[in-house]
Amino acid sequence: MPSPVEDIARARASSTVNIEAVRSYLYGGGDKWKDHEKVERTLASDPVFEKSKKPWMSRQELFEATLAQTSRIYELEERLSWTPEMTSRALNLLDDGTPLLLHHSAFAPVFASQASPELLRKYGALTRMRGIIGCYLQTELGHGSNVARLETTATYIPASREFEIHSPTFTSRKWWIGSLGSVATHGVVQAKLILPDGQDVGPHLFFIQLRSLEDHTVMPGISIGDIGPKAFNAWGATDHGFAIFDHVRIPREHMLSKFAQVTDEGKYVRPPHAKISFGGVRSIMVTAAGWSLAKAATISIRYAHLRRQGNVDSSGTEQQVIYYPSTYYRLLPILARAYVFIPLGDQIARAFTDTVQKLAEGNTSLLAEMHVTTCGLKVLTSTATARDIETARRSMGGHGFSVHSGLSRLYGQYLPATTYEGDNFVLDHQVVRAALKAHAAVCKSTAPPALSPSAQYLRLLGSPPALFSGSWTDPAQLALLLEQRAACVVDAYANSVLSGAQDAGASNRVSATVTGAFVAAQVVEMVKRLPMAGLATKDIVILSKLYTLYLTTEAEGALADLFAFKLLPTASSSNHDPAADLRAAITRLCLDLLPEVIGLTDAFGFTDWQLDSALGTQDGRVYEELVERAKAEPMNTFKVTPTYEIYIRPILQRGQQRAKRDAKL
Amino acid sequence: MPSPVEDIARARASSTVNIEAVRSYLYGGGDKWKDHEKVERTLASDPVFEKSKKPWMSRQELFEATLAQTSRIYELEERLSWTPEMTSRALNLLDDGTPLLLHHSAFAPVFASQASPELLRKYGALTRMRGIIGCYLQTELGHGSNVARLETTATYIPASREFEIHSPTFTSRKWWIGSLGSVATHGVVQAKLILPDGQDVGPHLFFIQLRSLEDHTVMPGISIGDIGPKAFNAWGATDHGFAIFDHVRIPREHMLSKFAQVTDEGKYVRPPHAKISFGGVRSIMVTAAGWSLAKAATISIRYAHLRRQGNVDSSGTEQQVIYYPSTYYRLLPILARAYVFIPLGDQIARAFTDTVQKLAEGNTSLLAEMHVTTCGLKVLTSTATARDIETARRSMGGHGFSVHSGLSRLYGQYLPATTYEGDNFVLDHQVVRAALKAHAAVCKSTAPPALSPSAQYLRLLGSPPALFSGSWTDPAQLALLLEQRAACVVDAYANSVLSGAQDAGASNRVSATVTGAFVAAQVVEMVKRLPMAGLATKDIVILSKLYTLYLTTEAEGALADLFAFKLLPTASSSNHDPAADLRAAITRLCLDLLPEVIGLTDAFGFTDWQLDSALGTQDGRVYEELVERAKAEPMNTFKVTPTYEIYIRPILQRGQQRAKRDAKL
Repeated sequence: MPSPVEDIARARASSTVNIEAVRSYLYGGGDKWKDHEKVERTLASDPVFEKSKKPWMSRQELFEATLAQTSRIYELEERLSWTPEMTSRALNLLDDGTPLLLHHSAFAPVFASQASPELLRKYGALTRMRGIIGCYLQTELGHGSNVARLETTATYIPASREFEIHSPTFTSRKWWIGSLGSVATHGVVQAKLILPDGQDVGPHLFFIQLRSLEDHTVMPGISIGDIGPKAFNAWGATDHGFAIFDHVRIPREHMLSKFAQVTDEGKYVRPPHAKISFGGVRSIMVTAAGWSLAKAATISIRYAHLRRQGNVDSSGTEQQVIYYPSTYYRLLPILARAYVFIPLGDQIARAFTDTVQKLAEGNTSLLAEMHVTTCGLKVLTSTATARDIETARRSMGGHGFSVHSGLSRLYGQYLPATTYEGDNFVLDHQVVRAALKAHAAVCKSTAPPALSPSAQYLRLLGSPPALFSGSWTDPAQLALLLEQRAACVVDAYANSVLSGAQDAGASNRVSATVTGAFVAAQVVEMVKRLPMAGLATKDIVILSKLYTLYLTTEAEGALADLFAFKLLPTASSSNHDPAADLRAAITRLCLDLLPEVIGLTDAFGFTDWQLDSALGTQDGRVYEELVERAKAEPMNTFKVTPTYEIYIRPILQRGQQRAKRDAKL
Repeated sequence: MPSPVEDIARARASSTVNIEAVRSYLYGGGDKWKDHEKVERTLASDPVFEKSKKPWMSRQELFEATLAQTSRIYELEERLSWTPEMTSRALNLLDDGTPLLLHHSAFAPVFASQASPELLRKYGALTRMRGIIGCYLQTELGHGSNVARLETTATYIPASREFEIHSPTFTSRKWWIGSLGSVATHGVVQAKLILPDGQDVGPHLFFIQLRSLEDHTVMPGISIGDIGPKAFNAWGATDHGFAIFDHVRIPREHMLSKFAQVTDEGKYVRPPHAKISFGGVRSIMVTAAGWSLAKAATISIRYAHLRRQGNVDSSGTEQQVIYYPSTYYRLLPILARAYVFIPLGDQIARAFTDTVQKLAEGNTSLLAEMHVTTCGLKVLTSTATARDIETARRSMGGHGFSVHSGLSRLYGQYLPATTYEGDNFVLDHQVVRAALKAHAAVCKSTAPPALSPSAQYLRLLGSPPALFSGSWTDPAQLALLLEQRAACVVDAYANSVLSGAQDAGASNRVSATVTGAFVAAQVVEMVKRLPMAGLATKDIVILSKLYTLYLTTEAEGALADLFAFKLLPTASSSNHDPAADLRAAITRLCLDLLPEVIGLTDAFGFTDWQLDSALGTQDGRVYEELVERAKAEPMNTFKVTPTYEIYIRPILQRGQQRAKRDAKL
């Protein structure tokens, strides 16, 4: 029987993928890959970033180890003259996150974009250089998704020209604030602004000092603590904390007042529009989803190549698990989604930069579209990614349940993406609302309406589509079918809303359909752009098949609607499955792609250090790795477990005596 | 705004469910509930079983705490004269499992049913009284699901009348064996039996001593260790271990030889039939799934009642989250599945007892049916349960990601049920194979065929069903529809197999369809049996609606097939959803049930100790509980984190200096 190492080597040799070219495509250019490689290799070779003890660390130990790593990254940044982007790459390579991530991704951008020039003069450089470390205090014990109802108050006191930050109720304490528990010196507090006349003008942002810069003790009037461990022991390195403010005064200038302001006398000056403070975190979440899927696909596909089990060929050799239809049917679509989400994320990040730039010029035209796109994509990609990581883990059978598989850690760490930056349950409603609004506009309009990208599918409204008789391997036809479906679903839903019909599951279903159509159209564009990415024809063919697999899998998920709205013909006879052609196409695409999947996963460029998975090592020595890692289990340091004397021996002795009595009876 | 405590109290008061009667129905009789209550109250009031420190325990600490609890349960068993069933209830109340569970559920039953009378005389009482502690050594590093290819050998040596147990390869070491790592003194080893002439007659079971009964040291020739932490830190209290055997001799009598035997001279005596050693663990997994869902439903539904967020009524009060369609549409079907799986599990456990009894009389007629039923139900219930626990957790938003939600622990602990006792991916094939076999038999048969319960749906084969025009609230019609669907799907799949069509996703889809039809038929029987369970009409109406919700939800999941095979009419116009009636029926059922759901979850009889969830307490004081539990976080013992001096301060100081330099430039 071939060894795992031979199995992986053979699969690698059989792949025709040009790793370098595809990798450059995924990284958005060879230079970015080189930056990434430089940073990654630096960390991987530095013992500070060693991972082998992590499964046994307490939270405090993991927290300390992570701060040591963060501190080292900043040293390396100076010593090796890393760009801010390279530092950010380094911080994102820390599997368990770091409290400082929030400083870079939440505190600093908000501060930079919304502080007054005066405040920026005082704290801008300190923020950029990490002379202060900030956190973003939004959610409270009693309120998360409904920012409008946060209870913390910021009352303006004209006499002293100060705001008084206060936690008026038990549930108003800030809660779930990353970096607050032990690390942050400063923060931006979301609090409802109360004017001197008692008027509440809703939530605004205030800059506040949390800890002394002398000795790190908490400032007077503030109580701070850590909220405790998270689900699955994930995010253990981050000090999510709580804070209670007891009439804490801050100067008037500490209101982030680039837009809304309060005058010395306490008069409120409105911001130009409501959504000005929308953050950019959602816009980078698509990319993060893509790379998480890339890890899950790499580990599970490698393992499925070297694990042999079950069916036996004529020479008595068991089959590689990857060749079971139930395996490749589950794993290859995950690979396809990784290849979709990564470039899609780059595209959205660029669009976000555009939007911010336009916004800075006072142009808000892109804002609504950006909002609905990032909401929809955040839900779609995070839902799919959490599900897929677990599917990949489960495909690895028993060993998949070892912590050393690496996928449970990835799952736990990824999972809150379904909840933060807008709970997926809640964001669905935003997507549906926008869809209904766009639908109503199209219905009212007499001329062909101007449709934003997220509503393009509505161009198909009213032209009752013919039964699909296209090809299941043509991306454009597949995307058109998914757009037609979205048009039907939204049209039917809009009508049902008008008629007062009740459908409790609608928001989730409609939202997924609408965003699915948007992504499908983007995938067609990705296929079109492949020749511009410096790829050889051979690689373009492979990637096109992968993208087609994405679309066919989406079509299979849409079958209920496709039949319901007569976009596909139903059964001609009772024993023929009308979806058989589609399913055969999916199977054929998988079979075509199978010889290439090791190459396609290698192209992600992960090292063993980065994956930290006994089951997904580059060379396939997984069994040796599992045995090696078992040696590190502290319980194996005992020749006889200390619990023997205390508990096991008494149980055995009592049992032996009872058995003896039993025998005598 | 009403307080959480008031919200829960009001919901509880509004429910008309007769808690006692429904609880008795769920527990299979009032006596069983009383047994359960007695055991549960005993544990809950004993400080040994206190749970508050668990989130911070190392594996070794959790292992020790669990053995202390196990030992206490055995003391209580003696002192309070618990029946074995009550002891088993107590052990099953330990959230993290216990190494001794394997002794009771795997080792002892196999030993009792398959050891020779001689071996039973010697070790039977010791096993029953726990004078020895056993484990079950089956899976190896290289093989799990394919038992036939296990590599460990048991070679018979006629000269000394011994077997030599040996691990001949790196991958043949036993791996993932619960209770082996530190606890077990004995074990049953699955090894391929090699006869003196070199013939390999496949896997058989052998009784072996692993550790000394004097001092617990590992016996000569055996190497044993713990395999390390599991995914999500779950099952941390169980010492899953590995073992390597180096030519270890055991007496001939130590082969579990009630069925297959080897004579003194080394002649092999075949067992009466192949599947004789099929275990009963799968038969109790349905019940376990049901009670896990019950916990998830209780915690999430309670929390959704007291969490207020979002929409505001005229008095400024925010809406209880449970009244959002996207919430109740997700959570109420979980409650329904709990109410289906619990009695279904009891039914399967009884059927298993029947099968075993018949088997003891040499009657194997029920074996094949039992096998396919337990395979199918194991896949269906474990897949649904793992998914539903996570859905419930996610419905609780940010706080759902706290370890104190209790649902991440439940998820991690439940999750391996999708893998052990036959990987779900693999069991699907068994179900499909049985379905194709039954289908072929029906097609060949001229007379109306005798169909086993799992194949009842095939009675509908060949009678092309009319379009459904029934009522979405009639369980019998819903079940019939799901059975018709199964008949169509299997018929079409059988034909596609004959025609060589490829469909890589088939096994999972077909298996779920077939088992789904079986469960649907059982649910109709459950509804019919409600009047015999001592329930008042009012409660029968409520439970019937819950069961109907189960069936309608299943029908919604089956829509693609229902349309494809013309069991449901497709759209009459392009803007009408032909599934609207079904979806409206689901929504109406949810709305009807909403006032009763707190009563229906109370009927599970969980105490706060048992749930161990800050978010699911009986009285609704969740915010106080979250704050209380945060106090226990060890990181909060520091006024200033010790990492400040080592890492944070240097980062800040460097930043401050750089900012100063920056200002000077």
